[in-house]
Amino acid sequence: MSELRCFISMSLDGFVAGPNQSAEEPLGVGGERLHEWIFALAVWRKEHGEKGGETNASTPVWERRNASLGAVVMGRNMFGGGPGPWGEDPWRGFWGEDPPFHVPVFVITHHARGPLEMQGGTTFFFVTDGIEAALEQAKEAAGEKDVSLGGGAKVIQQYLATGLLDELDLSVVPVFLGEGERLFENLGPAPPQLELVDVVDGPGATHLRYRPAH
Amino acid sequence: MSELRCFISMSLDGFVAGPNQSAEEPLGVGGERLHEWIFALAVWRKEHGEKGGETNASTPVWERRNASLGAVVMGRNMFGGGPGPWGEDPWRGFWGEDPPFHVPVFVITHHARGPLEMQGGTTFFFVTDGIEAALEQAKEAAGEKDVSLGGGAKVIQQYLATGLLDELDLSVVPVFLGEGERLFENLGPAPPQLELVDVVDGPGATHLRYRPAH
Repeated sequence: MSELRCFISMSLDGFVAGPNQSAEEPLGVGGERLHEWIFALAVWRKEHGEKGGETNASTPVWERRNASLGAVVMGRNMFGGGPGPWGEDPWRGFWGEDPPFHVPVFVITHHARGPLEMQGGTTFFFVTDGIEAALEQAKEAAGEKDVSLGGGAKVIQQYLATGLLDELDLSVVPVFLGEGERLFENLGPAPPQLELVDVVDGPGATHLRYRPAH
Repeated sequence: MSELRCFISMSLDGFVAGPNQSAEEPLGVGGERLHEWIFALAVWRKEHGEKGGETNASTPVWERRNASLGAVVMGRNMFGGGPGPWGEDPWRGFWGEDPPFHVPVFVITHHARGPLEMQGGTTFFFVTDGIEAALEQAKEAAGEKDVSLGGGAKVIQQYLATGLLDELDLSVVPVFLGEGERLFENLGPAPPQLELVDVVDGPGATHLRYRPAH
């Protein structure tokens, strides 16, 4: 059965993006340090048409992330383009004409918009009736595969708090960002009970896999 | 050479104590959940005159903590008794007449007070001239052994920010406290660079050992 999984990198002080996020720095000031362990991987570089890179303990973590990918859910903040209505020349995402998803992507927004078909198999669908509706549509699109939950932090918090997240793959990077977008807050009076099911000690990141406790 | 090491348990959302710390609940509301992995250990129970308990992957982590213990440094908040002058019937700590340290303990405070000798080898010394002086005195007392840095969070932050901490043994417990005393903040504009040197996957806690990166 299709699951909702979130793969995300977090600083040791709990941030998934630095301060002052912008079109130029979607991860905020210093936020790219959270993804250096990914950029070093040969498997990632190959996906992005680059040569070189290494194969290390983090490689299977990245491969596992991609192997089951059938659809993506993300918040408006991750898709970008600022808040409010889309306007006449609407934002087409941070990723150019061939985004690295290659599956349907469901963007949670307050502002309706028709589907945006890109190259390489990525189509953005804009969902205006909430996180449960977005997940339902994404699972239908994913079929037997899983749905990957992107950011931002607020959307992840909402799925976590409502118990809809089946797996949290947290890559803890030993840097301190000091400020930015904090992952674990706003979880409400009855936060989820998680248990660790796997640890991988990779260079530059420790990968902690959590699932709801039984 | 004597090192300064901090062994501390932290919730997944970054807290080392819950809200509303008091004499009755030194770890704040819900904070005792951070230490359940310790209370379950046979080695801890034996130290505290209790029977039973288990031996598991966390046992060597606890034993390592104790093996090199030569002295302790802690903040006034961890020693307790509220802020301000000590008064006529001064607070003697949270731990009764035979505290579980069994080594000299250096309490960083703004308020002078003579040494307080307890049973079982624990003597509290009250240091009023700052964290570096406290560490110096503690290292002298520890001799060949190490100095263990207790809490609270603010004292740990000060040692971390000044680069005086040689090792951070962080036990991450998969609970969300939502509020309380946050470990990683106030680290200043040039926070320390850490690297992971060991991971132990224990029941109820993941033990991450960090040291300054070279």
